[in-house]
Amino acid sequence: MPDLKRVCIIGSGNWGSAIAKIIGNNLPTMSDKFLPEVHMWVFEEMVNGRKLTEIINTDHENVKYLPGFKLPPNVVAIPDVKDSALGADILVFVLPHQFVRGVCNQLKGQLKPNTIAVSLIKGFDVAEGGGILLISSVIKQELGIPCFALMGANLANEVAAENYCEATIGCKDKETGALLKEVFQSSYFRLVVCEDEETVEVCGALKNIVAVGAGFADGLGYGDNTKAAVIRLGLMEMVKFCEVFYPSSKQSTFLESCGVADLVTTCYGGRNRRVAEAYATSGKSIEQLEKEMLNGQKLQGPPTAFEVNYMLKSKNMEERFPLFTAIHNICKGNLRTRQFMDCLKNHPEHM
Amino acid sequence: MPDLKRVCIIGSGNWGSAIAKIIGNNLPTMSDKFLPEVHMWVFEEMVNGRKLTEIINTDHENVKYLPGFKLPPNVVAIPDVKDSALGADILVFVLPHQFVRGVCNQLKGQLKPNTIAVSLIKGFDVAEGGGILLISSVIKQELGIPCFALMGANLANEVAAENYCEATIGCKDKETGALLKEVFQSSYFRLVVCEDEETVEVCGALKNIVAVGAGFADGLGYGDNTKAAVIRLGLMEMVKFCEVFYPSSKQSTFLESCGVADLVTTCYGGRNRRVAEAYATSGKSIEQLEKEMLNGQKLQGPPTAFEVNYMLKSKNMEERFPLFTAIHNICKGNLRTRQFMDCLKNHPEHM
Repeated sequence: MPDLKRVCIIGSGNWGSAIAKIIGNNLPTMSDKFLPEVHMWVFEEMVNGRKLTEIINTDHENVKYLPGFKLPPNVVAIPDVKDSALGADILVFVLPHQFVRGVCNQLKGQLKPNTIAVSLIKGFDVAEGGGILLISSVIKQELGIPCFALMGANLANEVAAENYCEATIGCKDKETGALLKEVFQSSYFRLVVCEDEETVEVCGALKNIVAVGAGFADGLGYGDNTKAAVIRLGLMEMVKFCEVFYPSSKQSTFLESCGVADLVTTCYGGRNRRVAEAYATSGKSIEQLEKEMLNGQKLQGPPTAFEVNYMLKSKNMEERFPLFTAIHNICKGNLRTRQFMDCLKNHPEHM
Repeated sequence: MPDLKRVCIIGSGNWGSAIAKIIGNNLPTMSDKFLPEVHMWVFEEMVNGRKLTEIINTDHENVKYLPGFKLPPNVVAIPDVKDSALGADILVFVLPHQFVRGVCNQLKGQLKPNTIAVSLIKGFDVAEGGGILLISSVIKQELGIPCFALMGANLANEVAAENYCEATIGCKDKETGALLKEVFQSSYFRLVVCEDEETVEVCGALKNIVAVGAGFADGLGYGDNTKAAVIRLGLMEMVKFCEVFYPSSKQSTFLESCGVADLVTTCYGGRNRRVAEAYATSGKSIEQLEKEMLNGQKLQGPPTAFEVNYMLKSKNMEERFPLFTAIHNICKGNLRTRQFMDCLKNHPEHM
């Protein structure tokens, strides 16, 4: 009988809690492979005079970040990240990206030799000197273990409510991919394993640039045709960007949930679209709008456009990406929003 | 000096008039290749006591179908379809699909030997015995001339307002494709020529089935995740359907305006989505809702689902297309709308 595997979830926000619900329900059904207990690292805080870990372990609900949904009792909240990861075979990273390095520092040298990681974190780190660095790359570098990604059109509360949806696992290794699919898939959360690891993850960052462009189109008063063109040209620039910077990238990956599905959702809903629309109509700065509309939280679109622009400039390729470039210049105040469409008139797609 | 080519537009609805505006502006700038005059066949009718052809030829506005937009004076309205097509090198078909066969019958034997056609008609005819027959195939068969397609996310009024948008020309022949691009492209109406002729055209029919599914998801009260999954699985079934029935189809065509852009626009706006949402919430029949919501006009989604289902059944393939099949069965009253998601739980995409 092989050793039973242990899963630990690093993070307990709304997405972390929603995924804990799924994994906590799944593991007991696979008792030939997994220990039923799921560890969840919870950043300790006091909620109504009680510790959050204690609430989760007693009442089986993350009342702060996913109120209204019961977690399976085999999901065990642990306030120390090293304790939570002790003996883990699979680490599920699902926490704000700015905390990844700090957590990895604490876990260094504490892991079993064959531990693997999966990142559910959308966003990116900044490479030394500039440019996008994938979160999975940070985890790989810091911990010296393989790290895969799970991405898709997945609002946490809708997943917790067990509404039907899809996601994509980026994993080159077939056997590992199949194992991860067993861990994460449920009757309502449907998964496709895709070998194109980097593209799966990059899509989640790049889509936010396109959503800013969709917001500009909305704010400028354009209709369905123009918005469709902005979204499609954005998708084509995502494809092209991956071809240049992640040469193993495949076009078919963009048809997965991590690609077109997540992009479309973000371009119709989503805060990047909403704030960009307000930017086009109000004349206020992005920073001002973040304060007013997002309680000071930061948008992902403009900084992603900035880092992508750094990468494009370094290869003298701004002109081949007129949409990404225009969005960056508009966010920086170097170009007026109403000049956006003019920048797309000679798009390489139409040459 | 080569003979100058003549362009004739068969149809003068809102899309026909919007495209006449573009072609009418383009031809005089290409006097080495084209005669400046554009013939437009106009089904004669009286508007405020005047003939519509006379209004167009005098006031240069199609006051009935595209009011508020001036047509170039070189667009000449002609009430007899044979007269309009006399000597034409390029016929642009842009009229309701039910009139195509009748018009072709009138044009038979009247055309120059090298005339080509372009269809801007979304929709399809029914093949003998059942199944989808492309409008371009009808034109090819009836007139014995090549017929290409121009498709995209193109609401006529937005094109007439010169809002930036894109479309796709399906044309295998490079030289002809380049010529057509010159005829149709403008600074705001941007074109990509795609060799995958059939897929370009089929997308425009299949998207309406998916839009019905998106409407069901909306009507059932699902959120962004589920709608994104329905749209993406719909897209994957469109890809698969073309692989089976149009084997030269390429996946990359679905990333063009005729594919993902038109699909998304139809699934967020569009009458098929709207009526399907009402079908899910009201319990009324499709026919009843067409009467109430569309003034008796017919939806394209349900009959397309019916013909596609005929084709899938003939190959014993219903199970490989659970979304198309469920939408057909729901429209026919054989399945309850609320069972829609259950039909997608074991989708082949997730196997």
